[in-house]
Amino acid sequence: MRKVAIVGVGMIPFGRYESESLVEMLAMPALRAMDDAGIGDRAVDALYVGNMAAGMFNHQSAVASALADYLALLPAAADTIENGPASGGSAIKNGLLAVASGYYDLVLVVGGEKMRDVIGPRATDTVATMTHPTAEYIYGVTLPSLAGMFTRLYMEKYGVTERHLAQVAIKNHNNGLLNPYAHIHASITQEGILDSPHSVVNSPIVSDPLRLYDCCPVSDGAAALLLCPAEMVAEFKKPKVVIAGFGQATDTQTVQEREDPTDLKAVRLAAQQAFAMAKQTPRDVDLAELHDAFTILEIAESEHAGFFKKGEGARALEEGRTRIGGDLPINPSGGLKARGHALGGTGVAQVAELVWHLRGEAGQRQVKGAEVGFSLNFGGFGNNVTAFVLRREA
Amino acid sequence: MRKVAIVGVGMIPFGRYESESLVEMLAMPALRAMDDAGIGDRAVDALYVGNMAAGMFNHQSAVASALADYLALLPAAADTIENGPASGGSAIKNGLLAVASGYYDLVLVVGGEKMRDVIGPRATDTVATMTHPTAEYIYGVTLPSLAGMFTRLYMEKYGVTERHLAQVAIKNHNNGLLNPYAHIHASITQEGILDSPHSVVNSPIVSDPLRLYDCCPVSDGAAALLLCPAEMVAEFKKPKVVIAGFGQATDTQTVQEREDPTDLKAVRLAAQQAFAMAKQTPRDVDLAELHDAFTILEIAESEHAGFFKKGEGARALEEGRTRIGGDLPINPSGGLKARGHALGGTGVAQVAELVWHLRGEAGQRQVKGAEVGFSLNFGGFGNNVTAFVLRREA
Repeated sequence: MRKVAIVGVGMIPFGRYESESLVEMLAMPALRAMDDAGIGDRAVDALYVGNMAAGMFNHQSAVASALADYLALLPAAADTIENGPASGGSAIKNGLLAVASGYYDLVLVVGGEKMRDVIGPRATDTVATMTHPTAEYIYGVTLPSLAGMFTRLYMEKYGVTERHLAQVAIKNHNNGLLNPYAHIHASITQEGILDSPHSVVNSPIVSDPLRLYDCCPVSDGAAALLLCPAEMVAEFKKPKVVIAGFGQATDTQTVQEREDPTDLKAVRLAAQQAFAMAKQTPRDVDLAELHDAFTILEIAESEHAGFFKKGEGARALEEGRTRIGGDLPINPSGGLKARGHALGGTGVAQVAELVWHLRGEAGQRQVKGAEVGFSLNFGGFGNNVTAFVLRREA
Repeated sequence: MRKVAIVGVGMIPFGRYESESLVEMLAMPALRAMDDAGIGDRAVDALYVGNMAAGMFNHQSAVASALADYLALLPAAADTIENGPASGGSAIKNGLLAVASGYYDLVLVVGGEKMRDVIGPRATDTVATMTHPTAEYIYGVTLPSLAGMFTRLYMEKYGVTERHLAQVAIKNHNNGLLNPYAHIHASITQEGILDSPHSVVNSPIVSDPLRLYDCCPVSDGAAALLLCPAEMVAEFKKPKVVIAGFGQATDTQTVQEREDPTDLKAVRLAAQQAFAMAKQTPRDVDLAELHDAFTILEIAESEHAGFFKKGEGARALEEGRTRIGGDLPINPSGGLKARGHALGGTGVAQVAELVWHLRGEAGQRQVKGAEVGFSLNFGGFGNNVTAFVLRREA
């Protein structure tokens, strides 16, 4: 396998795009990533688009082909990669392996979603199409409902409290305030979430015990990466950041079939694979972007990825270890909670965030001296997870 | 790049599946492909599913994750690959590069679509989501309408007649009669298509000048391949068939923007790339599976892929050169016309057909002594095309 580097990164602020089409939304970060690398007149060999549901959200298909044309990359190869909310992670994986194989040199990976073309309940329903059609979906199971049940179990088993959950939200909203790409720029307090006399108004229950502030927003957003063989990095203008490790694992589609429903086996395996390939350990990691679609997931993933022992993630959070400035900052971008969650855009945005930190380009939210970063993109309810280890190299 | 072989092949008859779900339809050929290879207790490392529109047809997403679970392949990596009607070709491509890279050894590629969950006009509309949303779709452009205009131009420029088109249909229906996996088992005659006094009833115009028998059916169907590094072939029970060449190219999304709308540039480039990688020429090819979604496409693709000079495809057809027994049998499977066109299933079914011929397992429709096969999967209206050269090796 050839070693693969990321030489260009681009993003658009997550939020709501009314006048831009999906293809226009995807084109903007793609152009930024090519410009970031200083691509000049080099040709992109292949394009990968991570997108979950353009058919259902935007009544559009073959988006990668359309984007190749819109960006004037013809005749570059182009595919759309779908893996639910981990579509971005899977798009990077396929770009990575395409370059690693030696078949393509310069590969553009773009992830994005335009979710807000449909109204709220239809967005939740569209996301729920990844649940089991006859064992879950027809009974009204949605991702928030699975997350609510998972949270309750985790609380009972590991002593996680609503206050811990609120701390994830508070931390990530604070980080989001420092991120110009974040969907939500608003600080929140524990009082605002849990203790307000108007709490029903301020932070209503969405799926018991999860409140509004425990759930990520429904975002439009997109991000892009330009990949090349590591030995080509010197031809571009940016410092060398390589994809040192990659992992991906699947688990049962329904949570109810798992021996221990609080055990996120696919997270554990994907992280282990990524660390093994990178020949690094969780202790080497300077910052992590985790998939906090629901606050509980940041805590649970931080344990399953190997950063903290099982049941100790909440304490690490409480002690401030996962804040910017702590020994393992998690979601300095604001995470899905505040940067936003644009399905196919999320996995790519996570890796873009890591690249900025590893280059020292993350502005006010910079994790100082970061050399190794980790990202985790969580598909289904943990039934298809991708993980990456990024490293700055000389 | 590691050389990659196909050691297992499976298919289900194309047609209509009422009681099976999409995932069940995908599982059947997957099990057959694993059985065909004699996989024993070896673990599949990764799964790729080629599917265009499960979201729109079946209100389902993350189908690859569901299939990995259903087939008990956990924790194998799993991604869905979408490239319109060339989703199958793109799924094979990503499986190929994944094995070629050295990251995975045993990769299962499954392509399929369950289109008949929706009624006819909605199927045509769903397919039309790959057209340009503001330059084509909103004006009612569909794939049959693009094909009708393309056919008219091709007739004017190259002297192709309605009788030539009918000959494609007749040949492919005859081939389909020999293929137990074909959707349509019915012989047709020129009289039945063009000369019947009841021709309006028997073969009505769909999109002038294309008649009913010029258009592929709307099919449910699925096929699967098991890939491994060529050096591992001896561990399995089948003769060695390698993916010697692969190519993929994009073109403008709208046909109207092409300098010469009868020039299928992406077909030409994808075929050239595949032949260059395989170090072979079109003259080495013993049989080809082309994307005859509309009869004109078989003629046009046979020229653009390099088998016949521009404008000479119709004559070659007329002379019987593309029949089974001719010097270049095209679509011995019956093609999309008779085997059927199940979108994401088609590209995988084409390659499965080649493998059977290269192994001498194609039964009554066997192309004798076939050593090199070629397949072409046509996405959009020719704006994203994949091509493969397969070779039997000692």
